[in-house]
Amino acid sequence: MSSYNNTARFSEARRVAIFGGTHGNEMSGVTLVNLWTKNGTEIQRKGVEAVPFITNPKAVEKCTRYVDTDLNRAFTPENLSAPGGNDLPYEVLRAQEINRIFGPKGSPEAYDVIFDLHNTTSNMGCTLILESSKDHFNLQMMNYIKKAMAPASCLVLMNEHPLLKYSTSRSVAKHPVGLEVGPQPQGVLRSNIFEAMRVILKHALDFIELFNEGVEFPPCTVEVFRVLEWIDYPRDANGNIIAMVHPNLQDCDWEPLNPGDPMFHTFDGKTIHYQGSGTVYPTFINEAAYYEKQQAFITTRRETLVASAIIKA
Amino acid sequence: MSSYNNTARFSEARRVAIFGGTHGNEMSGVTLVNLWTKNGTEIQRKGVEAVPFITNPKAVEKCTRYVDTDLNRAFTPENLSAPGGNDLPYEVLRAQEINRIFGPKGSPEAYDVIFDLHNTTSNMGCTLILESSKDHFNLQMMNYIKKAMAPASCLVLMNEHPLLKYSTSRSVAKHPVGLEVGPQPQGVLRSNIFEAMRVILKHALDFIELFNEGVEFPPCTVEVFRVLEWIDYPRDANGNIIAMVHPNLQDCDWEPLNPGDPMFHTFDGKTIHYQGSGTVYPTFINEAAYYEKQQAFITTRRETLVASAIIKA
Repeated sequence: MSSYNNTARFSEARRVAIFGGTHGNEMSGVTLVNLWTKNGTEIQRKGVEAVPFITNPKAVEKCTRYVDTDLNRAFTPENLSAPGGNDLPYEVLRAQEINRIFGPKGSPEAYDVIFDLHNTTSNMGCTLILESSKDHFNLQMMNYIKKAMAPASCLVLMNEHPLLKYSTSRSVAKHPVGLEVGPQPQGVLRSNIFEAMRVILKHALDFIELFNEGVEFPPCTVEVFRVLEWIDYPRDANGNIIAMVHPNLQDCDWEPLNPGDPMFHTFDGKTIHYQGSGTVYPTFINEAAYYEKQQAFITTRRETLVASAIIKA
Repeated sequence: MSSYNNTARFSEARRVAIFGGTHGNEMSGVTLVNLWTKNGTEIQRKGVEAVPFITNPKAVEKCTRYVDTDLNRAFTPENLSAPGGNDLPYEVLRAQEINRIFGPKGSPEAYDVIFDLHNTTSNMGCTLILESSKDHFNLQMMNYIKKAMAPASCLVLMNEHPLLKYSTSRSVAKHPVGLEVGPQPQGVLRSNIFEAMRVILKHALDFIELFNEGVEFPPCTVEVFRVLEWIDYPRDANGNIIAMVHPNLQDCDWEPLNPGDPMFHTFDGKTIHYQGSGTVYPTFINEAAYYEKQQAFITTRRETLVASAIIKA
C-alpha cells in the first residue's frame, strides 16, 4: 500500500481463496466450498482467480471441529516453521501445507485475499471478522458489503487485541476476512444461514472485481465492534461450570449489556449480574466450541473507523 | 399389569433411573444428572428410589454423541448377549453393563421406570417419547405431565413402528420414557431448554409418587404423534446431499405438512414438494445427528389413545 493525496494504493487483488471447513462441523462453508469446487461459475469474476479450498478435510470427514488441535489457532510462527514432519499434530502439518500453497504468511507471494467461512451457534447474524483496523482495503470492502446488504444487517468484529487475537487460517493472506454466520448448530445446514453466507461472498467478490477494474472508492466510515475481553462461565473450586448464560442475555449478541444487567443464571436459580464499568456489546454468546476455551461470551465496544479512499496501484 | 373392572393394576414403581449422556453432547441431561448425582434432594420422592446415571461417560468426556457406535441403538438382544468382552465396541460393552445394573431387559428384576434425557437441534419443544401404546402406566403419566405443563405444550411421540423402532437405553426398564427437548445445539447448554427438561422430570416424579401412594388415575385420552416414516435428504448419484430443508419447513416441527407443500430447497434454488397422499406432522426436522442416518425428518400422524384407569396392585 502507498498513499498519494490521501488515497491509498493497493496492488490488484487477483489471487483470492475461499476457505471452508477450517472447522469441519461448520456446514455452510463446507457445503459452499464443495459446491464451488464442482462448479465455480458463481464465484468467477473478471480479473479475479477465486480458489475454493477445504482446509481441514479430515475434520470435515468426521464432522468435527478438528482432529488434533484447532486449525484456526495453528498459524503461529512457531507452528509454521516447526520441523518434525509426520510427528506433528495433523492441523499443524495442515497449517504448514496451507501456508506453502497460499502464503508464505507475511510475504509478497502470499494470496491477496482469503475469505474463511465459519458458522456459530451464537445468534450473531451476518458477521465479518477483521484482524487490523489499518487495512483500508478491507475496511472499504466492509463498507461495500454492508451497503450492499442493507437493509439486512452485516456487522464487523475487529479482533486486534494484543492478547486475544489468534493465528487464523486466513491470516496467511495479505487481506484476511472471516465470515461468521449464525445461529446454526454444528453439523447442521440451515438454508437461511447458507444463503446469507452466499450473499456476503457475492458482494465481497463484486467489490474485488470493481477494485481490480480501477474503480476508486472514496473515503468512508465503518462501524466496527472491537474485542475487549472474554468472559468465562462461573465455576466451582474444581473448575466445573455452575451457571448458564442468563435468558436475558442468551441470543442477544450485539445488544448493549450494561453494568448490573443479568449475565448468568446458576443451576440453583441465582442471577449473576454484569459488573463492568460501562456498556459493552457482547457477542459469541454461548458458542458451542468455546466451552473448552472457557469462554461464555466476548465483550466488545462500538467504534467508528475512517477508511481512506483506495484505488488500484 | 392386571385388569379388574377395567382398572389396570401395576406394581409400585419404586426403582426409577434417570439417564443423562446417552448422547454425550446433549448437555441438558448431562448437566441435570451430574447435578443430581451431587445433590439428589430435587429428585427425592416418598417411596421412590430415583437413581441419576451417566450412561456414556466416555462420550460425555469427549462431548461427542458416541465413541464407537450409537448407545441408543445398542440394546438389541444380539448385543446384550454378545460374548467377546473387551473386543466389543465401547457402547456395546456399556449396554451390557447398563443392562446388568438396570435390567435385565424384559425381566421382572428390571427397573420400573427409566427416564432418558435427550436434546435435539430440531425445534421440537418439550417432547416425550414412548415405545408402546399398550403401556397404560406410561400413557397415564403422559396425561399427568401434559396437564401439569399446560398451558405450555408437551407432545408425545409414539415410536412402535415395526421397522423404525430402535433399541434404546431406556428400553431396559418396564416403563421406558424418553425426554427430547429442543432446539439446542450439540455441546451447548441453554437455560430455557435446561429448565423445561427439569420441569418435565419434576411432574413425572410427582406422578410416580402419587401412584405409589395408591392414588387411582381415572381413564383418559392422550394425543400422540405416531411415527410413520423417515424422509432422507435429496441426493445425487454419488450419495451427496443436494438440498436443504426448505425454509417453510425448517423449525416447523409438529405443524401439518400437506401434499404439495415445500419440503426441500436445492442448492441451485429449486423447490422439492411433499408428495405424500395426505397430511402428516413432521418432527426431528434437520436434527444434526441424523445426517449420518440419512434422515432429514420423520413424518407422524396424530392419534388419540385411550388409557385405562390405573391403580397400584
